[in-house]
Formats: sequence, structure tokens, C-alpha cells
Amino acid sequence: MQLTESDLPALARGCAVLGTGGGGSVETAIPSALQALREHGPVPLVRLADLDDDALIVPMSSIGAPTVGHEMLASAEQPKRLREEVERIAGRPISAIMAGEIGGSNGVEPLAWAAQLGLPMLDADGMGRAFPELQMVSMHVAGLTSDLVILADVVGNVAALRPIDAIWSERQARALCVASGASTMMANYLMSGAQARGAVIEGSVSAALDIGRATIGHADPVAALTERLAARRLLDGKIVEVERNTGGGFVRGAVVVDGTGSYAGRMVRIEIQNENLVVFESGEVVASVPDLITVVDTQTAEAVSTETLRYGQRVSVLAWACDPLWRTPEGMAVVGPRAFGYHIDYRPVEEHVHVG
Amino acid sequence: MQLTESDLPALARGCAVLGTGGGGSVETAIPSALQALREHGPVPLVRLADLDDDALIVPMSSIGAPTVGHEMLASAEQPKRLREEVERIAGRPISAIMAGEIGGSNGVEPLAWAAQLGLPMLDADGMGRAFPELQMVSMHVAGLTSDLVILADVVGNVAALRPIDAIWSERQARALCVASGASTMMANYLMSGAQARGAVIEGSVSAALDIGRATIGHADPVAALTERLAARRLLDGKIVEVERNTGGGFVRGAVVVDGTGSYAGRMVRIEIQNENLVVFESGEVVASVPDLITVVDTQTAEAVSTETLRYGQRVSVLAWACDPLWRTPEGMAVVGPRAFGYHIDYRPVEEHVHVG
Repeated sequence: MQLTESDLPALARGCAVLGTGGGGSVETAIPSALQALREHGPVPLVRLADLDDDALIVPMSSIGAPTVGHEMLASAEQPKRLREEVERIAGRPISAIMAGEIGGSNGVEPLAWAAQLGLPMLDADGMGRAFPELQMVSMHVAGLTSDLVILADVVGNVAALRPIDAIWSERQARALCVASGASTMMANYLMSGAQARGAVIEGSVSAALDIGRATIGHADPVAALTERLAARRLLDGKIVEVERNTGGGFVRGAVVVDGTGSYAGRMVRIEIQNENLVVFESGEVVASVPDLITVVDTQTAEAVSTETLRYGQRVSVLAWACDPLWRTPEGMAVVGPRAFGYHIDYRPVEEHVHVG
Repeated sequence: MQLTESDLPALARGCAVLGTGGGGSVETAIPSALQALREHGPVPLVRLADLDDDALIVPMSSIGAPTVGHEMLASAEQPKRLREEVERIAGRPISAIMAGEIGGSNGVEPLAWAAQLGLPMLDADGMGRAFPELQMVSMHVAGLTSDLVILADVVGNVAALRPIDAIWSERQARALCVASGASTMMANYLMSGAQARGAVIEGSVSAALDIGRATIGHADPVAALTERLAARRLLDGKIVEVERNTGGGFVRGAVVVDGTGSYAGRMVRIEIQNENLVVFESGEVVASVPDLITVVDTQTAEAVSTETLRYGQRVSVLAWACDPLWRTPEGMAVVGPRAFGYHIDYRPVEEHVHVG
């Protein structure tokens, strides 16, 4: 399968839904993806099963804020330099690049890089959604280590970090990103095809595409989305409260939605750390990480990111099952409610009793 | 020749004199050098002429402030990790390590690392003295580039930077050093034996040793030192003014010395940027960078660093000729008075008319 310019709207919509409120705003990633696909042509989307055991798979992402003034270099030189350094260190060519995180802009940006580099994109990611911290990836759960982090900044500097652990990988990558003053491209968890099997969430890109396609042009987009996701539609309502604090690279806060229509008289509170973490109704948890919780516009079914939540918006709150990998004891240790400071036991979203 | 524990006092004294007021306090470097030499035995001091054209020479230095709590790891693991990464990237074993800067503690520390690593030390450095900025090295003047900087911090993190220029190499190295909160070991300007010929200041380590030996136990150490250096003894006197501002990693300031004895009635002002830059007498320049200017204790001939200058100290001010490399047009562009913001033409110290 080839990803073309015409796939971009559906992909972006799907990535926003899978972003569960975070993962960066997809709007920022669309223009350069569009330009790259127009300039360099379609990007092959490959399945892990099609790659050899010794294929080199490189998850790529960006950290820090993109700045307009640096866009030219960012789009032209950064991926090239990152690739050169990766291939120099790995000693072999990259077979496919992968989104570290399919949710939000992080799921769309790699398409631009793949086009620019003339490389295939792997139909997989490391989360199947978005998560706020670097170690919250399937590769980590599978026992791969982030012991090599390669960075290329907008200035042209390249760095290869060999941190002692994930915390230092984050700290050092941020320090270099801050020093260069803007968005930096990152490759980490370099994997062979053999290592990737069982260590990545397969089918993420086609899932995002399918989600987008299910809603675009549909008469009742929220119903279509709910069906496609096999989601629970927890509430339709109006946003009546938004708390949001930004600091330390995270957005923390909560949003309260007051039910309307058939949901009148009910109310949910969604707690946030970049992504939507837990939904409470009448003091009870009705959905929690690692299951996916997304707030969508009730009319268009477009995902509303945590940054754009605003008082008075009419929204629907959906929750659906995460990838089975996150429900293993190893997955739960990394992204279960307790990993986010909640003293609650995880219950799969489909087992919660529907309050309504 | 082998460097042993008994050479350390002379080496340290000589490095302090060549530090021209800067290069870090030698006292901080002596304990670990002593321990390393006792534990691992003597370090061979090799001449560049004895190394093959394809030998791998690695200048090593430390950046940031050493902290006591990290000393153990710093002494044991840091040089090893730095060596491993250097050898991994270079693809061959290190033949000899070199002090990037012979002046001050930077001239003594590499002896500890050489002992710990069981490697020879090259009888050379990149300055023949101390200078405040990273690009002020002979390798830069000779056209070699600092396009690979390898760092090992006290935590155990290792990084290989490929900066676009010397300014970014400094900025990125500092950012990582600050992130790890303490002293970081650095290797840059990796060279082959062939590249090093003409690009390093040869004989620096033995020069430091000779300087130290010339003064220790001598009846008139300042006279002995002056003779050994073929220096001009600009003034003996008392410090009557010290200005010192610390900021941006630099100590800037000036010191005024009022002549005593046969120098009574005369006065000099020394301007400082980490190192002693220019000596003025009656508004005239009597010595300037890149020639060496050192303030020594009039009794012991021990060098007084810019950090320890204090009112009332009895000192002698010496100035002598720098390495010929710094007097070339290329050298002058990098370390001449104008490179430090002085709108004066350089005149070799030996050509200045003696005012006294």
C-alpha cells in the first residue's frame, strides 16, 4: 500500500482521535507532510511481516516546539542528517521508519520524513495512542532499551547520546533541544525486524486511516466513530469547566462535561496529563489509562485536544480498549493508573458498568 | 621517559606557571593524579616523533566544576567510558592521550586519566599555556575541525556530538554538562599522528616539568624561573587593587601591582579574562596575549591564579614569548589582542622597550 496526499486528511483525523487529547496538534504537521508527499511522491506503507529479521527499523519523533523561522531547514536537512548519523552508527541502511507515537502530530510527521527520505513507513508505532512520557512505549515493555538516542536539530547539529537509563535519555535530549532553541528530531529504540516482532503495536497507521475514513463525510460521524472504535460513548454534553496548568513539559488539568439530551442530569470529569487519563462519574472511575479516552466534537466527531478544550463546547466523550500489550502485567506497570499516581486498580473499559 | 608520583609536584608547579593565571587550580587535580599514579604505576611520556602516522591521539579535558560527591565515579568510570566511546567511533585503539591545555589543572588531570587507562601521554598540548575559549587551540589554527566532541559525565552518560562549528560544540557540551550537574570529561580534535604534526605544541609536558624543577628548592626561585623562561621580570610589588567579575563561565577583571624595592615608583595593571591578557604600565602596553603573563609569589615563585589574587600580596610579574605558532597570521587571528577585544597591534614581549 502507498500513502498519498489524498490519505492525509483521514490519517490526520485518525491520529487526532488516537491522541486521546495529546500527542501534539495534527494541524501543525499537515502542511509539511502535504508538501513532502507532493514533492517526493507516495510513501510505501509496509507491514512488519514483510520485513526481514535483519531489517533496520527506526522510530522517529520530534521534541520541543516547532518554530516558523526554522521550518525550511527543519523540512529539508534535519531528516537527512538524522538518517546519516543513524546509518553511520548502525552500519547499515534504514529499512523503514516508524512513528514512535501514532497519536496527534507525532503520527503525521513521520510521513513527511519518510517521503523526504524516500523510505517506507512501518504500519506500526510504539503506543497505539499517545502517552506523556518517553518510557511509555511498547519497546520498553518488551525489554528493549533506549540506550542510544540520536538527535538532529534545526541548526544542523547532530548528537548520539548513550544515556544510562530512560530518565537520563529524556533529560539529555531536552537539554540539547533547549540549547538549540527549537524542535529537534529524535531517533531512539533502533530495532531489527526480529527485535520489533512483539515489541511494537502493529497496524497503527492503517488503524488511524480507517478511523479517519469512518467519520469523514458520514451523516452521523460520532456514531460512525463509536462503532469503528467499538467504543463506549460515555456522555454527550457541554464543557462547563476547564482547569489547565502547564509546567515541566506537561499540561495537567481536568475538564468537566455536563450531559445534554439523553445524557441530561449526568456529568463526567476527565483528568489530564497531556493526554486524557481518567474519567470519573459520580465519584466512580468509568474509564482509565491505558484505555483510550477521547473528547470529540459532537457535530463533526473531530478530536478535541487538551490544549483546545474550551468552555461551552459541545462534545462527546468516548472510551475504548487499548492494545492488549498494555493490559499485561508488564504493560500495566508502565502505563496503568498507578504509573500516573492514581491509587486505583485498572478495570478494562468494557467491564465498567454503564452508569446511564 | 616515565612520569611518576615524584614528578607530580614539579609538573603541577609548571602547569600553574603556564596557566598565566587560569586553566583551573592545579591543587584540585593533584590528589587524583597522585592516587592514580600510586595505583596504576608510571605513565610513559611519548614524543610525537615516536608515534606512527596512523596513531590515534586524543586530547582530553574536563568541563564544569568538579564536585566532591561524584569524585569516586569521576575517577574510576568516566575515563573508561570516554575511552570506550572514542574507540568505538574511531574504530581503533587510542595510542596516546594529550592535554588540550597544559596550563593549570587541565595540564595535570590528563596524567591521572592516562594512569587509569594505562595509556601513554603525549608530550604536547593544544596551547602551550591556557586560553579561555575552546577554539583557541593549535589544532584549530592548523585547520583541524572540532566536528566530533565526545563527552562522559559523572553519572555514566556518554554522548557524541557532531556540531556544525566550534560555537555550537561549546554550547552543546555545556548544555549536557549542566544537565548532568557536574564535571564532564571531554575528548575533541581526535587526530592521527600525521594530522598532529604541526598542529600541536610539542614538548609542553616536559616544559612544565622543567619549569617546576627550576624553582623547587632554589635559593632565589623567581630569578631561577625568570632565567628558565627567558622571561622579562616586569615588576616586583604589592597588589593594591583587584577587580573581579564572574559570569558566563568567565572571570573578567584587572589587578594593579605597585612596585617595591628596585621597582618602587612604578606600577602595572594586568587585565584578565580567566587568564592574564595584557599588562599596562603608564598607559602603555608592555606585554599582551598571546605572550605569557604570569603573576608569581615573590618568595616562592609559585604562580598566583586569577581566583586567588588578593590585596597586599607580594608578587612578581613575568612575561615571556609564546610558541611561534601563535605569532603566525593564523595564530594571531585566533588569540591576538584583537581576538580579545583590544584595539592594539601585537608586539612580541621581547621587543617592548623596558620602561624601568
